[in-house]
Amino acid sequence: MKRLDIFGTLKKDMDVIEKELYRSIEGDDSQLGETSLHLLKAGGKRLRPVFVLMGGKFGSYDIDRLKYVAVPLELIHSASLVHDDVIDDADMRRGKPTVKAKWDNRIAMYTGDYIYGKALELTTRLENPQIHQILAKAMVEMSIGEMEQIRDFFNVDQNVTRYLLRIRRKTSLLIAISCQLGALAADADRRIASAMYRFGYNVGMAFQIQDDLLDVCGTEKQIGKPPGSDIRQGNISLPVIYALEDPGIRISLLEEIERIHAHNGLCDVSRAVEMIRESSGIARSEALADRYIGKALKALDQLPDIRTKKHLKDIAHFVTKRSY
Amino acid sequence: MKRLDIFGTLKKDMDVIEKELYRSIEGDDSQLGETSLHLLKAGGKRLRPVFVLMGGKFGSYDIDRLKYVAVPLELIHSASLVHDDVIDDADMRRGKPTVKAKWDNRIAMYTGDYIYGKALELTTRLENPQIHQILAKAMVEMSIGEMEQIRDFFNVDQNVTRYLLRIRRKTSLLIAISCQLGALAADADRRIASAMYRFGYNVGMAFQIQDDLLDVCGTEKQIGKPPGSDIRQGNISLPVIYALEDPGIRISLLEEIERIHAHNGLCDVSRAVEMIRESSGIARSEALADRYIGKALKALDQLPDIRTKKHLKDIAHFVTKRSY
Repeated sequence: MKRLDIFGTLKKDMDVIEKELYRSIEGDDSQLGETSLHLLKAGGKRLRPVFVLMGGKFGSYDIDRLKYVAVPLELIHSASLVHDDVIDDADMRRGKPTVKAKWDNRIAMYTGDYIYGKALELTTRLENPQIHQILAKAMVEMSIGEMEQIRDFFNVDQNVTRYLLRIRRKTSLLIAISCQLGALAADADRRIASAMYRFGYNVGMAFQIQDDLLDVCGTEKQIGKPPGSDIRQGNISLPVIYALEDPGIRISLLEEIERIHAHNGLCDVSRAVEMIRESSGIARSEALADRYIGKALKALDQLPDIRTKKHLKDIAHFVTKRSY
Repeated sequence: MKRLDIFGTLKKDMDVIEKELYRSIEGDDSQLGETSLHLLKAGGKRLRPVFVLMGGKFGSYDIDRLKYVAVPLELIHSASLVHDDVIDDADMRRGKPTVKAKWDNRIAMYTGDYIYGKALELTTRLENPQIHQILAKAMVEMSIGEMEQIRDFFNVDQNVTRYLLRIRRKTSLLIAISCQLGALAADADRRIASAMYRFGYNVGMAFQIQDDLLDVCGTEKQIGKPPGSDIRQGNISLPVIYALEDPGIRISLLEEIERIHAHNGLCDVSRAVEMIRESSGIARSEALADRYIGKALKALDQLPDIRTKKHLKDIAHFVTKRSY
């Protein structure tokens, strides 16, 4: 997925969010400031804050309230990536060295803890317990998802349902609550907040499937790291699960994954990548992503016809615009 | 410090807390349940919940509200220990293998994340934003303290002030807010909550100094791990800082610490432990711990004369009752 540059109308407020993001983690401790800013400075689409602000458009939009949801959600996303890179033993993210690579695992762990704490601290400035509840619940679910991911590394027997449950926790939930909390922080109607949640949830599912497709089908320049890094670390994603259902390549792909596992990923993975690319797994994954986008668009039917609704539609279509 | 067995009157409610502690982290995911319960099952003094309940005695005591502060505080403490053991590369805690030793660092990291999340989720059942704010702020401070600790490993140039700042963040703050939040959750007067905070803060400082003394002066049976584990991992504690100020042993102790550092702690530390034991560092550390206890007792003067006040006094005295 390419950069989101379709948010002209939100650009000014996203600049506010960007400044607040930086400010939120500066000042306490110079080293933590540096390690925490490291990933944020490397960029990222800021998808979660954008969704918060768009959710806010369906209520009484106030950037000075919305920022206490938008910034924390990006921070939580960021903290989860910092911890994720420890687990994945990843050296590169967004085209730059990861915190764990530039410093070490211990520093990455506490950097993540610090960013999580900061996120929560900021949110509590909004004295709305419901928002705190939704956020805390999501953090629990995310950590369960991460644990499931560790457990499923190199598990070639997992089915599609298991994969979907995992990406639900890992990705979709945080995007769903970004949409929902934006609406709630702007005191929008509860039904609108629910529709925003459903929109975000389905876009999030499509987004993660698309991301997993990109890891197989994209170029190093597009992804910011070499293709095939999922299979290298044993992350059995949807295209792989589908490819393994293809009797023509199942045996040889299993052998290839076994070989990668035996080498702990420290070997050439291009043959496995090639096999997945040429399997029916790509088209089937794309079809499922498109189905989620269809559901996301359907959720929009519940929303009033303001300009933001059109932008949400654009994002939904944008998510599955294939660049590979 | 030996087991706290002076809380006869609170015993019934501490049983409620113990059950809630277990229940809070069961059920979501069998592996996370197992890893999360692992440390809790190994015991612990449950000092933070006890302080919450005692704080509650100064307001309208209600165990069904207080548990949503008491359980989270013990969980946060527990999560910080699980992450701490990754950093310290510790194999034993409370006489049992650590999560990172029994499973691995990655699992320990997410187990900690999960427990933190659960703690927050539970607290949000109390719809009191002030409580959420205090808790989130403490978590931020704790992670800063942990980072400081990493940075100060084997730093023999640190002074007493730096040590005190670090243990403030690492230990005292959480004990202080346990006392304070207990009072606040029971709608006690704000001045009472502040006095409880000061009591907890000073007891916490004394408690950590005492703990650091025990690591040098205690037996393996008392500590649940071999003595000298602080110096082994490069944690320069108060008795060491004071011992290094002793001109008679400074040079030889510095050499010993340098040797331990060069061996990454994988060597005999008994000579260093012996030197610290025989230095003036022990008596000076004890004197400082006693001074904090004096301040804690003074904070109690602000509290009404109920039976709990007497118990708090007992705890304060108990913390510095030397068993070595």
